[in-house]
Amino acid sequence: MNEVASPTKASLAEESIHQQIEALAKAAREASVTLANAASQQKDEALRAAAAAIRAGSGDILSANAEDLRLHGEKLSDSMRDRLALDEDRIEAIAKGLEDVAKLPDPVGRVLAEWKRPNELSISRVATPLGVIGIIYESRPNVTADAGGLCLKSGNAAILRSGSESFHSSRAIANCLQAGLIAGGLPGAAIQLIPTTDRAGVGAMLTLAGLIDIIIPRGGKGLIERVQRESRIPVIAHLEGLCHVYVDGAAKPEMARDIVLNSKMRRTGVCGAAETLLVDKRAAQSHLPAILDALAEAGCELRGDAPVCKLDARVIPAVKEDWDTEHLDAILSVKLVDGVEEAIEHIARHGSHHTEAIVTEDAATAERFLSALDSAILMWNASTQYADGGEFGMGAEIGISTGKLHARGPVGAEQLTSYKYVVRGAGQVRP
Amino acid sequence: MNEVASPTKASLAEESIHQQIEALAKAAREASVTLANAASQQKDEALRAAAAAIRAGSGDILSANAEDLRLHGEKLSDSMRDRLALDEDRIEAIAKGLEDVAKLPDPVGRVLAEWKRPNELSISRVATPLGVIGIIYESRPNVTADAGGLCLKSGNAAILRSGSESFHSSRAIANCLQAGLIAGGLPGAAIQLIPTTDRAGVGAMLTLAGLIDIIIPRGGKGLIERVQRESRIPVIAHLEGLCHVYVDGAAKPEMARDIVLNSKMRRTGVCGAAETLLVDKRAAQSHLPAILDALAEAGCELRGDAPVCKLDARVIPAVKEDWDTEHLDAILSVKLVDGVEEAIEHIARHGSHHTEAIVTEDAATAERFLSALDSAILMWNASTQYADGGEFGMGAEIGISTGKLHARGPVGAEQLTSYKYVVRGAGQVRP
Repeated sequence: MNEVASPTKASLAEESIHQQIEALAKAAREASVTLANAASQQKDEALRAAAAAIRAGSGDILSANAEDLRLHGEKLSDSMRDRLALDEDRIEAIAKGLEDVAKLPDPVGRVLAEWKRPNELSISRVATPLGVIGIIYESRPNVTADAGGLCLKSGNAAILRSGSESFHSSRAIANCLQAGLIAGGLPGAAIQLIPTTDRAGVGAMLTLAGLIDIIIPRGGKGLIERVQRESRIPVIAHLEGLCHVYVDGAAKPEMARDIVLNSKMRRTGVCGAAETLLVDKRAAQSHLPAILDALAEAGCELRGDAPVCKLDARVIPAVKEDWDTEHLDAILSVKLVDGVEEAIEHIARHGSHHTEAIVTEDAATAERFLSALDSAILMWNASTQYADGGEFGMGAEIGISTGKLHARGPVGAEQLTSYKYVVRGAGQVRP
Repeated sequence: MNEVASPTKASLAEESIHQQIEALAKAAREASVTLANAASQQKDEALRAAAAAIRAGSGDILSANAEDLRLHGEKLSDSMRDRLALDEDRIEAIAKGLEDVAKLPDPVGRVLAEWKRPNELSISRVATPLGVIGIIYESRPNVTADAGGLCLKSGNAAILRSGSESFHSSRAIANCLQAGLIAGGLPGAAIQLIPTTDRAGVGAMLTLAGLIDIIIPRGGKGLIERVQRESRIPVIAHLEGLCHVYVDGAAKPEMARDIVLNSKMRRTGVCGAAETLLVDKRAAQSHLPAILDALAEAGCELRGDAPVCKLDARVIPAVKEDWDTEHLDAILSVKLVDGVEEAIEHIARHGSHHTEAIVTEDAATAERFLSALDSAILMWNASTQYADGGEFGMGAEIGISTGKLHARGPVGAEQLTSYKYVVRGAGQVRP
């Protein structure tokens, strides 16, 4: 390759990508005004029409998916290939997901609060869409429909940037979403897929403050860190879920065993899966053996601190990094602590502020854990695997926010709104 | 000056400022953990003790203020000098402001929502502090107490960066706030003033993501744009208030006159002051003359489009920039429009999404205006000058957010909180 010419070519290409994406974002902003004022019924009709288009277009979606698998399948890990692959059942689940979103209450126009002032001004806080939402994701093509559908429901325009592995599948799905919008009498530009997988496309999106209101990255740590570093637009990020379970001395042994096993092993690849088990040293003899038996039997690799290794020969010594690692696999780090206070300290130092659980029958200990820790979700006597918008009764989610600004925890249609104040008077002027 | 040596010196100084501010932010983060768990009573006691310290220290504060005026008074405009100057009355107002904040309900620990799932998991969304808040402001020393007090009330640590003009005054006030914290048994590091007015101090703050959770700039457009451009930390910004009043053909003439006059002239330097008047052409003959009489009589300069100039010889021709300028002065841009739709279009193009008012007796026209426009505050038959947290019954405010993320409109103690989910179970594991 010509080393002198290529940077120039690259910058020309970047320049043209930037212009292309700016034009697309302008169209999205225009569409967002229509979306913001669309009736609930119209948005739901578009969602149902999109579901129908996905069912009708399943052949095209499967061919596109086969093309993605042909191009990228070999270099992907098993779990990534599994995330990418579609079949009739998965396509039906995508269509059904859109119909479920249609059934949710409309988050826009809700009166969040209402009061009257002594001067008779009547004030209400009313939910409004955010505007234009940029979603940057990796290899799961279903995110196209999930994210596009939630944005539509919440009256926002969506700009979707699919990972290169799932680009053809995402494009086929995005076409169905646009068909749904148009069938519902709404502008097709309200959901647009960035037509290139060039990394410059992400960079261009992140500079379009004023046209894009918020960026939501969905993917690995590398992607999210890049987005947080480069973005000139506010980001709602779903960082890692380094979730903890603390088994207190006052826990019921069987409940502790079941909650730890479920928190770790129900599904190991989800962000609500436990990565570290902290056990009160008072429970080391009474509770821990049965917990380790259950985990080992289920095929979980156990890594412990010295006292845990001493208790159980199946446990291999944990290294320093284990306490800070989201394994997303059948591996659990196990540590003895001196009661709830040391558990709180450990979690505050090593946790990712996602989800933590305590198992105890002692209400005062539980309340101390629930109030002292600053994680998005805190569970008492329940599995960390409940950390999920659906399980919270909030419907579909676009991710679980580990930040504290705007939205925290599951980000569903409601969390994709802002609000405005509407003040009704009778001619009041301020003294 | 030695052009080679000075950048080196500057970077050494910057390096040391950065270290100093990082150390200060670490202390703030540590203090924020104590603040987050402090009882309401303790926080309120600290606020009252700070008020007492301000009254007792009024001599020191006035001397510090005299020093600021001596150093900077001559180069300031009249209105800036007025913002900077303190007297006994203003100091009493600052102390009283802190006592008023103490009387507000504690925003932390509020149960924002609570529900039970079919599987008997009980879920509640509980308000939590944000953590550490950085406030960057210009010449008004009272912001030190207002911002510090609101952060304390909401369980957040505050890092305050005062403008150089008010540095000595701000420092004297910050000392009183720290005395209040300590008297209340809380860590003094929960409210800290950056001990330098070097611009590198702002730069350093903006890079401390992880230690500072949110940045709130208070000041002119230049400051806010710099902060938004450079910050690696989310920003809640109070941008300009380019507020509009639209007088509809169906308005009561006297109400229209009074609301326009009040919106523009009650106080011209506040962000809720109207800058542009849009008049329905159906009201040009019936309503506008009395409105222009009242404004002219009150000393308001009138700048109009061609039809308005033709109607009234006192009106000078508006230039293009007038429609996009926040005058913050006794100047009003006036334009005839063809009904509410053109008013909406004009505001969407030229407004700053702060506050707009419509004057009309026609409910359908009003509702169209209220729903179609996307400003933080929309008024029907009331003056734009009501755009103020106090007037909304929300207590003191740290600013009026013109962004849509997290907080919109008046930012008071409640808006300085996030939330977490607390889930209480009886041993549930997820199927």
